Amino acid sequence: MKKYAVLLAGSGVYDGSEIHEATFALLSIKQNGADYQCFAPNKNQHHVINHLTGEEMPESRNILIESARIARGQVKDLKELDASHYDGLVMPGGFGAAKNWSKWAFDGPEGEVDPDVKKTILDFLALGKPICALCVAPAILAKALQDTSYQAEVTLGSTAEPSPYDIAGTHTAVSTLGVKTIEKTLRDIHIDHHNRIITAPCYMMEGSIADIYSNVKMAIDQLVRI
Amino acid sequence: MKKYAVLLAGSGVYDGSEIHEATFALLSIKQNGADYQCFAPNKNQHHVINHLTGEEMPESRNILIESARIARGQVKDLKELDASHYDGLVMPGGFGAAKNWSKWAFDGPEGEVDPDVKKTILDFLALGKPICALCVAPAILAKALQDTSYQAEVTLGSTAEPSPYDIAGTHTAVSTLGVKTIEKTLRDIHIDHHNRIITAPCYMMEGSIADIYSNVKMAIDQLVRI
Repeated sequence: MKKYAVLLAGSGVYDGSEIHEATFALLSIKQNGADYQCFAPNKNQHHVINHLTGEEMPESRNILIESARIARGQVKDLKELDASHYDGLVMPGGFGAAKNWSKWAFDGPEGEVDPDVKKTILDFLALGKPICALCVAPAILAKALQDTSYQAEVTLGSTAEPSPYDIAGTHTAVSTLGVKTIEKTLRDIHIDHHNRIITAPCYMMEGSIADIYSNVKMAIDQLVRI
Repeated sequence: MKKYAVLLAGSGVYDGSEIHEATFALLSIKQNGADYQCFAPNKNQHHVINHLTGEEMPESRNILIESARIARGQVKDLKELDASHYDGLVMPGGFGAAKNWSKWAFDGPEGEVDPDVKKTILDFLALGKPICALCVAPAILAKALQDTSYQAEVTLGSTAEPSPYDIAGTHTAVSTLGVKTIEKTLRDIHIDHHNRIITAPCYMMEGSIADIYSNVKMAIDQLVRI
């Protein structure tokens, strides 16, 4: 049975992993007859956002501990992740990817990636194992590949359909890192066959929770087959 | 388009709403061409549990604010819920149902139900509108119906297959409230046609996330058809 490492960044779209995307990634892995193990960095979140008001809350939360809410307790410290033990890596989206795995949310393409997250991405690629990155996670993947010889292709959505975000600007910013960006809607995913990188726009685009499920499932279905 | 009220109790199985069950309830509603609005009590959780260790954390969190993590910000104060505006009520499980909607987790059948939660349940039933309760939520539903004329039937799982909980004991406890309990596995749900109450065991039983999705979807598929 194939087993995938799923990298979480907390629990909640505005300061952690997007809950629907992460949950649907776990679901889709199991629906494909495969298994998963969740991991997360054992350090504090960049900050805590009140998801009702969007305002910052005067408290601190640990990424690993909060990720355990999505994983029902079954999550390990990212430092324990050995890429050789897994068949691939899954990176759900949410602002936690851009705030806790990296500083992308604050510094854009200048935002450094957490060393353990970067090492994890490079370890999987070095072993020729596939990576599936959802929503904004491809931006952090692109930053991790900066100054390497990987010439990756990723999608971060499409300018052809509604999005709550600046898709054109995000594609331009990610392109400065040496990664080729491809426009894809919620009804599609992008497969970089050379590097075995699968990306899907998910909540980078406007869509219902059913659209997000179908987009995540398309990506995971390919991950287990690639 | 039918629209359902989804009652949340926080975000995380051990002190709030079970994230997978709640997410799959929202997904299944949309997959059926219907819509939803989330609600939650605007008060503090009973306590906060570290989902990695199971231990209590020395802090407090608000049920409505934490529920907004599952609802991506789109959740309203339960006090604003008018049953006449919705086609039915969905109650996902998780310990939050037994700790925040009621004191079931601490006092069993003696554990009082939050007055707004009780009013909501009775309002929907009085209007003849269906209620779908998942996992442990039927116990809170049963407590809300104590001392009423409703003779409801619910399931809280089956003793025939593995469960992390005392299914026989839970059924006995719920039965003392005047509700008839029916044994159902993860591959089944129970429909109380007379009261239009649909219940499904979900994480009351041992199962993978794919088993939970399929069980939630069976229940919601019936909710929109009943």
